[in-house]
Amino acid sequence: MTKNGARFDVLGIGNAIVDVLAHVDEEFLIRHDLVKGAMRLIDEAQAERLYEALGPTIEQSGGSAANTIAALASFGCDAAFIGKVRDDQLGRVFTHDIRATGAHFDTPPATDGPTTARCLVLVTPDGERTMNTWLGAAQNLSPEDIDEELVKNSAITYLEGYLWDPPAAKEAFVKAAEIARAAGRKVALSLSDSFCVDRHRESFLELIRNSVDILFANEAEIKSLYQVKHFNDAMHAVRRDCPLAVLTRSAAGSVIALPDDVHVIEAHPVKKVVDATGAGDLFAAGFLAGYSRGLELPDAARVGAMAAAEIIQQMGARAVRPFHEVARENGFHHF
Amino acid sequence: MTKNGARFDVLGIGNAIVDVLAHVDEEFLIRHDLVKGAMRLIDEAQAERLYEALGPTIEQSGGSAANTIAALASFGCDAAFIGKVRDDQLGRVFTHDIRATGAHFDTPPATDGPTTARCLVLVTPDGERTMNTWLGAAQNLSPEDIDEELVKNSAITYLEGYLWDPPAAKEAFVKAAEIARAAGRKVALSLSDSFCVDRHRESFLELIRNSVDILFANEAEIKSLYQVKHFNDAMHAVRRDCPLAVLTRSAAGSVIALPDDVHVIEAHPVKKVVDATGAGDLFAAGFLAGYSRGLELPDAARVGAMAAAEIIQQMGARAVRPFHEVARENGFHHF
Repeated sequence: MTKNGARFDVLGIGNAIVDVLAHVDEEFLIRHDLVKGAMRLIDEAQAERLYEALGPTIEQSGGSAANTIAALASFGCDAAFIGKVRDDQLGRVFTHDIRATGAHFDTPPATDGPTTARCLVLVTPDGERTMNTWLGAAQNLSPEDIDEELVKNSAITYLEGYLWDPPAAKEAFVKAAEIARAAGRKVALSLSDSFCVDRHRESFLELIRNSVDILFANEAEIKSLYQVKHFNDAMHAVRRDCPLAVLTRSAAGSVIALPDDVHVIEAHPVKKVVDATGAGDLFAAGFLAGYSRGLELPDAARVGAMAAAEIIQQMGARAVRPFHEVARENGFHHF
Repeated sequence: MTKNGARFDVLGIGNAIVDVLAHVDEEFLIRHDLVKGAMRLIDEAQAERLYEALGPTIEQSGGSAANTIAALASFGCDAAFIGKVRDDQLGRVFTHDIRATGAHFDTPPATDGPTTARCLVLVTPDGERTMNTWLGAAQNLSPEDIDEELVKNSAITYLEGYLWDPPAAKEAFVKAAEIARAAGRKVALSLSDSFCVDRHRESFLELIRNSVDILFANEAEIKSLYQVKHFNDAMHAVRRDCPLAVLTRSAAGSVIALPDDVHVIEAHPVKKVVDATGAGDLFAAGFLAGYSRGLELPDAARVGAMAAAEIIQQMGARAVRPFHEVARENGFHHF
C-alpha cells in the first residue's frame, strides 16, 4: 500500500466529541438501566441528569474516528479529520487536541445551535466502558463540510458507523465515500457498536457490498451485522461481501478475513485493563498505520493489537505517549 | 479536635480552576523559559499561545484549596468551598466535580467578565509539574462572595496563599480570616508556592503571626518565607511565629513544628511518581481529615503522607478512588 500521490494516508470522518470520563460501580449501571459496554444516544436533558449523578470526571477529547486519526498522527502518519464542533470551550479543547497530534483539522465550527458533543464514559472496576452520547453540534455535520479536495487527496477515507445516526451526517458520509471511490481511493468503515449495527443493518450491508474496501468490526458487531450466533459464520459471510475485513476479538486477538484467505493474530500482552475506551479505535489506527507503511496484513494487525493494548492500560482514548515511541519499543521500526 | 458544633469540618477558600494537563519534555520548559516545579501567573494571550504549543491535553478540575476540599469530602469529612467560576462549560465542570465529591459549593458563578480560570499543568517525564495559571473569573472573587454564616459554621477555614495574587480575592481572604477568628474558629493557611511567598512575604508573615492557627508549607516555601538557607532554621523560626506548622519535604517526609515540640514523620511509600500535581494539597487534606477526626498530630501527618502518595501516582490532583477506601486499606479506620 502506498499513498499513490495522496497528501494524506488517512482522512477520518466522524462525530467530534469530548469524552467525560468517570468511574462508576456495577450498581450504577443497573440503577440507570444501562447496557454495559454499549454506546447509547441520549438527549441533552438526559446528559445533564446523568452528569449530575456522576462522581468527579476527567474531560478528554474523544470521538471514534477522531481517536483513530489522533493515533495515526501520533504514529507519524499523515492524517486528517472532518467533524463538527461548536465554537465553545469544549469545541476548542477538541480542536486543540486533534491538531496537537499533528493531524489536519479545519472543519468550520458551528457558530450557533447545540454545544459541542459530549460522551459520558462510565468506567467500571473491570475496565469496561459504557458510553452515553449527546451528539450536540456533531449532528449538524453536513455534506457541505466534506472538503472534496481533502477526500481526493487521502489514500484512505475512514468512516465511523456512528455517523449513520444523525441524518445530515449520514449524507456527508455517503458523499465522502462517493468522492473517494470516484477518485480511485479506498474507503474504510468501522461498524462502531453492535446497537448501531442493529439500527442500520440493511444500509451498512449495502454499503459494505458496494463501497467498502476495508471493514473494521469487533465480534459483537460482525455477528449483529449478519445476525448469526457464531463468530465463524459471520467471518465467512463477510469474506463474501468485502475484500478486507479486520475483526477484533478483545483478549482473543484478531482475525483478518480476505475472500481467499484468513489470518488469525494474537492479542498484545496487557498487564491490567484500566479503561477499555478506544480499544477498537486504536486497533484500527495501528492497523492502518502499518498498512500505510506497507506492512504485511498480519504485521499491520499486530501493530493494531499493540496500540489497543497501550490504550486500555490508561484512562481515556487518547494516548499519553507518542505511538511512534511505543511502536519502536515493541520492535516495529517502520514508524 | 472536634467540630465544636460547627456544620463543616473545613471550609476552603481558593481560586476555582480547571487544570489542563499535558506531558512535555524538559526541552519544552527550557524553550518556553519556564521554572520547573513553580506556578506562574499568565494572561489570557499567554495562555492561548502556550496552549497552542502543547500536545494533547486532559481537562480535570483543580485549584489548590479546591483539591484539598474535594479530597476532604472524599475522606468523608464535611467540607465546603468558596471560589469563583464563570457560567461557562469549564465552570460547570468545576462545579460538578467538587459537588460530586460531596463538598458544599454554592458561590454564584460570574455571568460576565473573564472565563473560568485555567491552569496549564506541564508534566515532565520525572513526574514534576510546572504550572501556568490564567486566573480568569477566579480573580473576581470578592468579599461579597464570603458567606459569613458558612465561615462561622466551619471548624477550620483553610485559605490558599495563591488568593493573595488577585487584589479582590485577597480582601475576601482577609474578611474570611477575620470572621473565623471572631467566631472562635481556626484559620489554616497554605503558602502555595515559593514564588508566591516571594511576592507577598511581609503580608504572609504578618498574617501568620497574628491570625493563622495551622500553617502548611513545603521546604522551599518555608525557606523562602524566612529567607534562610537551611530547613532547620526556617523550622525554628516558624515555631516562634505559629502554634502549628505542618512542613512537607517530598520524599524526605514531613515535620510538625510546635512552639514546644517537633515531630518528624516518614513519607508514604511510592512506586512511581506519575505526576506531582496536588501533592501538597492532598497532604493538607489528609492531615486535616485526621486532625478533624481527633488523631494525634503524627498520625494526622501519616494520613497526609498517604493521601499525597496516592495522588502523585496518577495524573491530576483529583483522586480516582475515594479516600475513605484508600485510608482503610492503609489501616486508618477513622474514615
